[in-house]
Amino acid sequence: MATLAPPPDPESDPRVRAVFDDIRRTRGSDFVNNLWRWLAFDPALLEEVWRDVKAVMATESALDAKTKEMIYVAVSIVNACDYCTHSHLAAARARGMSPAEHADLLRVVSTAARTNALLNAIRPPVDAAFLAPDPDADG
Amino acid sequence: MATLAPPPDPESDPRVRAVFDDIRRTRGSDFVNNLWRWLAFDPALLEEVWRDVKAVMATESALDAKTKEMIYVAVSIVNACDYCTHSHLAAARARGMSPAEHADLLRVVSTAARTNALLNAIRPPVDAAFLAPDPDADG
Amino acid sequence: MATLAPPPDPESDPRVRAVFDDIRRTRGSDFVNNLWRWLAFDPALLEEVWRDVKAVMATESALDAKTKEMIYVAVSIVNACDYCTHSHLAAARARGMSPAEHADLLRVVSTAARTNALLNAIRPPVDAAFLAPDPDADG
Amino acid sequence: MATLAPPPDPESDPRVRAVFDDIRRTRGSDFVNNLWRWLAFDPALLEEVWRDVKAVMATESALDAKTKEMIYVAVSIVNACDYCTHSHLAAARARGMSPAEHADLLRVVSTAARTNALLNAIRPPVDAAFLAPDPDADG
Amino acid sequence: MATLAPPPDPESDPRVRAVFDDIRRTRGSDFVNNLWRWLAFDPALLEEVWRDVKAVMATESALDAKTKEMIYVAVSIVNACDYCTHSHLAAARARGMSPAEHADLLRVVSTAARTNALLNAIRPPVDAAFLAPDPDADG
Amino acid sequence: MATLAPPPDPESDPRVRAVFDDIRRTRGSDFVNNLWRWLAFDPALLEEVWRDVKAVMATESALDAKTKEMIYVAVSIVNACDYCTHSHLAAARARGMSPAEHADLLRVVSTAARTNALLNAIRPPVDAAFLAPDPDADG
Repeated sequence: MATLAPPPDPESDPRVRAVFDDIRRTRGSDFVNNLWRWLAFDPALLEEVWRDVKAVMATESALDAKTKEMIYVAVSIVNACDYCTHSHLAAARARGMSPAEHADLLRVVSTAARTNALLNAIRPPVDAAFLAPDPDADG
Repeated sequence: MATLAPPPDPESDPRVRAVFDDIRRTRGSDFVNNLWRWLAFDPALLEEVWRDVKAVMATESALDAKTKEMIYVAVSIVNACDYCTHSHLAAARARGMSPAEHADLLRVVSTAARTNALLNAIRPPVDAAFLAPDPDADG
Repeated sequence: MATLAPPPDPESDPRVRAVFDDIRRTRGSDFVNNLWRWLAFDPALLEEVWRDVKAVMATESALDAKTKEMIYVAVSIVNACDYCTHSHLAAARARGMSPAEHADLLRVVSTAARTNALLNAIRPPVDAAFLAPDPDADG
Repeated sequence: MATLAPPPDPESDPRVRAVFDDIRRTRGSDFVNNLWRWLAFDPALLEEVWRDVKAVMATESALDAKTKEMIYVAVSIVNACDYCTHSHLAAARARGMSPAEHADLLRVVSTAARTNALLNAIRPPVDAAFLAPDPDADG
Repeated sequence: MATLAPPPDPESDPRVRAVFDDIRRTRGSDFVNNLWRWLAFDPALLEEVWRDVKAVMATESALDAKTKEMIYVAVSIVNACDYCTHSHLAAARARGMSPAEHADLLRVVSTAARTNALLNAIRPPVDAAFLAPDPDADG
Repeated sequence: MATLAPPPDPESDPRVRAVFDDIRRTRGSDFVNNLWRWLAFDPALLEEVWRDVKAVMATESALDAKTKEMIYVAVSIVNACDYCTHSHLAAARARGMSPAEHADLLRVVSTAARTNALLNAIRPPVDAAFLAPDPDADG
C-alpha cells in the first residue's frame, strides 16, 4: 500500500505535464510508470528526480545502458526496494539482459553480500596495494 | 582494527596452503590479500569462501569480469563495506575500468540510492508492465 | 503476512491490559494499533517497547513532536520498514506535517541517501572542521 | 583511506572552479570541505551533486534548515556514513542545534531503529487507519 | 510479486532434480520450498546456493541447529528479507525454539539495532580491551 | 573519530555516577567502556540505554548469555557497526564462545546475507507452510 495518494489528474498541472511529456519522448513510449504518477504530488520533487534519473540513466555515458540498469538493480536489491528491483530489472531486460546475465547478476550480488558481511565482521586492514593510485594516474 | 587475529604462519596449515596456492595460480600473482590471511583462522571457512568467490568472479560467465567487479563494488558501497569497496575497485581498475566508468558507477549507485529511498518512502504499487514475463519467455 | 500470531484476546492478560490502557490514555484515543496487538504475544517485551516509545515520542522534550515523527519516518524509510513508515507518517500528519513538509522530508531523505552512497564509495578524510568541539563547548 | 585520489589542483578546471565559487558564495565562507574536493575528480558529477544538495539543503523550503540537517543526520547514521554524520552534525550545530536537541535526535533515531527491527521481524498488517488519505485531502 | 518466473516443470532438468532430491533427503520431507523452485531458473546457481546452505545449516558444527537458525533470522530481519524471516523462523520453531526464546530473539535483535544506531551516531573509539587477542590465544 | 565529546568528568554528575556504579556492580568489574562514557553527555539517554541493555543482556532469560551475545554480534555486523561488533565479540568470548563457534557465527551470518540478497532479488511468494501457526499453538 502506498503511503501517500497520487494526484487524481496529474497532467492538469503544467509542470507535471511537461515532465510526463519528456518521459514519453525520452523513452519513445506512452507508458508513464507509477513512480512518476506518485511523485507528481509535488511537482518540484518530480522535476528534480526526473532530471537526475534522465541525466544518469537515459543519457549516453561511459557505461552502456544495460550495464547501468544492472548496477541499479544491484543497489535496489541491497536497499530492499521492491518497486525499484522490479522496474530496473524490466529496464535491464528491455536493454538486452539475457536470462544468463540475470543469473550472473544475482550470483555477483549475493556473493558480494556474503563477503561484505564477512569483512564487516572481521575488519582486516585494507591492503596497501588497494589504495587509490596517485592523482596523475587516476585523474 | 580487526576483530580477530590472523594466524601468524597461515601456510603451515596444508588446507590454507592449498587455498593460497590456488589464489596465486588463479590470479597469476604472488599477492594474497588480507581477506584470505584473516579467513585462514578457520580453514574450512576459507575454503568455502574462496570456492564461492572463485566460481563467481574468476570463472568465465555471461557477464565480463569488469562488469562483475563494478556490480560487486556497487553492493559493497551500499553495505558500507570499506575493505570490499577498496579491494573490488582495485580489481575493477585492474580489469580496465576507466576513470570515466568509475564516475559513471558512482553516478548510478548514488542515483539508485536516492530513488530507492523515495520508493521505500512512497511505496506505489508495482506496475503490471514490470511483472515477470511468463516462464517460457524467461526460462 | 505476519511472522507470528497475536494473542486472540490480549487484554485478558492484566499486564497487556495495563499497557493498552496507558496507550489509550496517552493518546486520548481508543485506537490501539497492530504493533501493540502483536507485541502482546510477550507482555514483558510489550511493556519495554511501550515504555521506550512513550518516553521518547510522547513526552515533551527538546524537539517538538512533529519533528520527532519526521525523524522517525526518515529512519524507517532507510531501514525499509513498511509498517513504521506508514504509522509514523500518519503520526506526523496528525501532529501537523503539511504536504509541503512531507515533500521536503522525502527530498532530504533521498538526497541524503544519494550522498551517503557517494561518501561511502569515496571515503574522503573527515575535515578537521567537523570534529567534535571540546567537551566544555558541547557539554 | 579514500578510494580515489582527488585532483591535486581542482580549481584549474573552470567547471570545478565555478562550483567551488558557488559553494563559497552560498555558504558565505571560504571553506570547501573534502566531499567537494574529492568529487572534483569528475566535474559533471560534482555539478550534479552540488546542484541537488544546494536545491534541497541551501534553499528555503517548508522545513527550516536546522530540521533538514537533523533529518540528514538521521539518514546518514542508518546508512553508516561516517563522513556524512560528521559533516551534517556540524551543519546542524551551525544552524542552532543545541546539545539537548542533539540528544533528542539520537534518542529518536535509536528508538526508531529498535522498532524498525521489531516490525520487520513481526510484520503485522498495516492498520487501515494509517493508509494514505484520499487525494483531495492530501493533494 | 516475484521478479522472475520459476520454470514450470523444474525437475525435468536433471541438475535441478538432483538438488531437489538432495533437499528432500537432507530434510526427510517431500516439501521443497519456493526459494529452490525459483532458483531453479538457473541450475548452476541453484547448485551453488544449496551446497552452501546445506554445508552451513544442515551439517553438524560447533553451534547447534536451533542457534544457527536464530542467528539466520537475526540477519534476515536487519536485511529486511521478508521471505527469509518467515522461512528461518519456521526452521527455528521446527528445531525447538520456544515462544519465550522467540521473544528473547526479538528483544536482542531490536536492542542491538538501537545501540548500533547510537554507536554509528557517536562513534567513540573502540576500547583497547575489546581488541582481538593475540593469535596464539585465538587461533 | 567521535562525533561528540564525552564529558571530561562524567561521574561528577550523580545520575551518571549511579549508572556507572550499576554497570560495575552488574559486571563485577571496574571497567566502564567508552559507549557509556560518551553517552554520559546526556544522563537521561544514558539511563534509558543502560536500563534497556541491562534488562535484555544482563538478566536471565530464555536464551543463555553467550547465545544472546552472538545474536547481538550478528545484528551489529549487518548494521556495519564497528564498535558494537568489537564490544559484543569480546562479550561473547568472555561468555565462552570458542574459536570454532566464532567461525560458525561468521559462516551463518555471511550465508544468511547471501540468501537475503537472493530472496530480496527474486521475491518468491512465502510458502503457506511458513505462515505463523494459529495463536493457541504459538501463544
